[in-house]
Amino acid sequence: MKHPRHFLKLDDLSQAELLEVLELSMRPELPPLLAGKGVALVFEKPSARTRHSVEMAAVQLGAHPSVTRADEIQLGQREEIADVARTFGCFYSMVGLRVFWHQTLLDYASASPVPTINLLSDRSHPLQALADILTMAQQWGIAPHDMPDGFAGRSVAYVGDPNNVAKSLALACAMLGIEFRLSCPKGYTFPEEDIATILPVAKVNGVASWEALDPKEVVAGADVVYTDVWASMGQEAQTDQRRADFAGYTVTAELMELAAPEAIFLHCLPAHRGEEVADEVLEGRQSRVWRQVENRMHTARGLMAWLQGGSQA
Amino acid sequence: MKHPRHFLKLDDLSQAELLEVLELSMRPELPPLLAGKGVALVFEKPSARTRHSVEMAAVQLGAHPSVTRADEIQLGQREEIADVARTFGCFYSMVGLRVFWHQTLLDYASASPVPTINLLSDRSHPLQALADILTMAQQWGIAPHDMPDGFAGRSVAYVGDPNNVAKSLALACAMLGIEFRLSCPKGYTFPEEDIATILPVAKVNGVASWEALDPKEVVAGADVVYTDVWASMGQEAQTDQRRADFAGYTVTAELMELAAPEAIFLHCLPAHRGEEVADEVLEGRQSRVWRQVENRMHTARGLMAWLQGGSQA
Amino acid sequence: MKHPRHFLKLDDLSQAELLEVLELSMRPELPPLLAGKGVALVFEKPSARTRHSVEMAAVQLGAHPSVTRADEIQLGQREEIADVARTFGCFYSMVGLRVFWHQTLLDYASASPVPTINLLSDRSHPLQALADILTMAQQWGIAPHDMPDGFAGRSVAYVGDPNNVAKSLALACAMLGIEFRLSCPKGYTFPEEDIATILPVAKVNGVASWEALDPKEVVAGADVVYTDVWASMGQEAQTDQRRADFAGYTVTAELMELAAPEAIFLHCLPAHRGEEVADEVLEGRQSRVWRQVENRMHTARGLMAWLQGGSQA
Repeated sequence: MKHPRHFLKLDDLSQAELLEVLELSMRPELPPLLAGKGVALVFEKPSARTRHSVEMAAVQLGAHPSVTRADEIQLGQREEIADVARTFGCFYSMVGLRVFWHQTLLDYASASPVPTINLLSDRSHPLQALADILTMAQQWGIAPHDMPDGFAGRSVAYVGDPNNVAKSLALACAMLGIEFRLSCPKGYTFPEEDIATILPVAKVNGVASWEALDPKEVVAGADVVYTDVWASMGQEAQTDQRRADFAGYTVTAELMELAAPEAIFLHCLPAHRGEEVADEVLEGRQSRVWRQVENRMHTARGLMAWLQGGSQA
Repeated sequence: MKHPRHFLKLDDLSQAELLEVLELSMRPELPPLLAGKGVALVFEKPSARTRHSVEMAAVQLGAHPSVTRADEIQLGQREEIADVARTFGCFYSMVGLRVFWHQTLLDYASASPVPTINLLSDRSHPLQALADILTMAQQWGIAPHDMPDGFAGRSVAYVGDPNNVAKSLALACAMLGIEFRLSCPKGYTFPEEDIATILPVAKVNGVASWEALDPKEVVAGADVVYTDVWASMGQEAQTDQRRADFAGYTVTAELMELAAPEAIFLHCLPAHRGEEVADEVLEGRQSRVWRQVENRMHTARGLMAWLQGGSQA
Repeated sequence: MKHPRHFLKLDDLSQAELLEVLELSMRPELPPLLAGKGVALVFEKPSARTRHSVEMAAVQLGAHPSVTRADEIQLGQREEIADVARTFGCFYSMVGLRVFWHQTLLDYASASPVPTINLLSDRSHPLQALADILTMAQQWGIAPHDMPDGFAGRSVAYVGDPNNVAKSLALACAMLGIEFRLSCPKGYTFPEEDIATILPVAKVNGVASWEALDPKEVVAGADVVYTDVWASMGQEAQTDQRRADFAGYTVTAELMELAAPEAIFLHCLPAHRGEEVADEVLEGRQSRVWRQVENRMHTARGLMAWLQGGSQA
């Protein structure tokens, strides 16, 4: 079996490869690298932005995107995951999966003869991180060939739940020399294994990655303020507890004033106004959330082009 | 934000624009106005004709149609409707929605940066009305440049439940100078707001729009006899009550004999034989229901082409 | 109404037509015979291989494949089957259906103005049989113009549940002059009607079709050993009973040793390792199951091309 490249987490790419993906993502048009081919997208959880951005990115590369709800194949129940991976590999040139458990992705990819893409797992959301980075690069006018140097001195303050989105963002920042600051309530920090992944990368790239209980501390002077919902899909039962725990972690206009004068606000959406972010921030002049959404499509296209060998084209 | 044109109800178009749409619908082939672009189709209710006619119409214009079941995005629950509209607007060139409540369409369209198409709401079904008009125009050999004059003297008798389909049909007739006659049991007439919309339009175009309890009265001499199921989707609990109320409103062969000699029978389907229509009528020589189904695709294509600026092409 | 060709069971094709389909299936590329057209795929049951192989086959012929879950149209409940068939026939050039009851296919096809394809019913799985035959032909290097003579002396031993897959395979073997041998527990043989179909065809083509209780007896010297799950979709309640009944019918490495020295192992998948087949057989050197999966796509493409008149092209 050939061993294809997969994209299950951001550091499945080297820094140089990540820059290649960003360069491809910035091209307004790419050759139809997947013309006549298929891309399968499998969802164990609902998806709006991820599904539709990847679906249209596939179309833009000439591919046929095929969406499958997990109940149609019952990964690991009706059929062993490895057998599904080999079956899909007979028909499709790439497969993306949104899964409850990251282990499903690992099992799938290890048997898949074609590139496997993480469309969100409990542990990471690397496609989101690609869009986040592209949005910052556009905001600051930094081209991939000026990265990571162009990012020197930049900082991202993530306020709220240190979830899969936050983890992938922290790793992206570490890989590209952007300072990452986390503020969350006691007991909500990154798991040890993620810290063990992120910190050495940040160190190699000569940048800090740190956290503080007080949101004001991390937002002070930051170039980006980022947040996400307090209860992710599957955590609905914890909603009340989390609302209590995260009181005081709302990104308000007052909090934004502590950031750098030209700071921007990012959010991976969906947003719960009045909880993790105030409506006036989400809809305000510093918000780049719709640009960020659109960039989901551009970076998905760039990534798929890269996986198909597009950086050599 | 740019303000796109939407198609939520028939009179979102002027009479002149409606004729442009019909003209585009009659062209056997259109340029691939949506090549490389996407059209999202979102369904809160099941759909056979609407989904598949619009889906293939999009394909014929070169677009990728993307079908989403509402439970995947939970409009207004998982995410605010306006945010979904802005998200889809980042990826898709047009969005169609089948909704329980027309208000959902209004909320969606008001935030959408791209054209929004009504795929059926509780209040109207304007895509169906386009196909109905096209079917009549073909039957009578009337070209759009001869409309509305060519329709002078023509009449449509709608017998049965004055539902969303009937409302859109009545408005279409009013806009194009076709007499519209409704026959339904007591207590089932159009709501005041629809009457207030339809009557002034009919008056401007010099045509009558009236109703009678007795089906024979409206069918007498009519050029088209039209009916639809007595209990629409979501009204299943009222089935028995409605069956009792609508007894005597079945379109039978005897009733058809009262219509004009060359009268045709139309039905938006699905049909319940023996309830709102007799099998011999639905399958009879006057029935044009399969032509009408096919016209769903042609008019959807014409409408989407028009929304994409096709009448200027 | 025109009377299109359908593919509901293997002998809807003559032997000569079956060879045409196989010839088209072997071509690495076919002209885009369905460019700009649509193929509807309707599923009353889940599907992995069948859906995705046919979906990509349609794409490879230039078509737009449209997947519909049966709950969206409720065949025969929300709308009469014949009306659904005529509706889909207004939009699509071909329609495939996976159904609980074969009768649904018969009702559908009898009203459909376009070719209807069986995507699996309780009675047959002819698309699977096409892939099975192609896999054997490739294995033995037999071109369609050398069939059926090239198959002379070849034999297939099916061990396990004589289900829809087995029936279609038996009929395929009978049509192409391959000996078919069945081994299953008492009480599990083919129904009389299938035997009455298969045996005369085998006789005409001068080949045997027989069964034995003992797996060793049928596997002895066979060129192909084939099995499938003991409990198909919908038979989950009988799982324990069937596990008991089929004990001793597992295809093990020991059993494979009785087959011809160059024998291959086939399975339509999904597989339940340790039940109908040992892991070492499924993953072993004689297994051709992944080639067989890939051939699902090639034969679906060949069949659709044939239905679209491709053998005249």
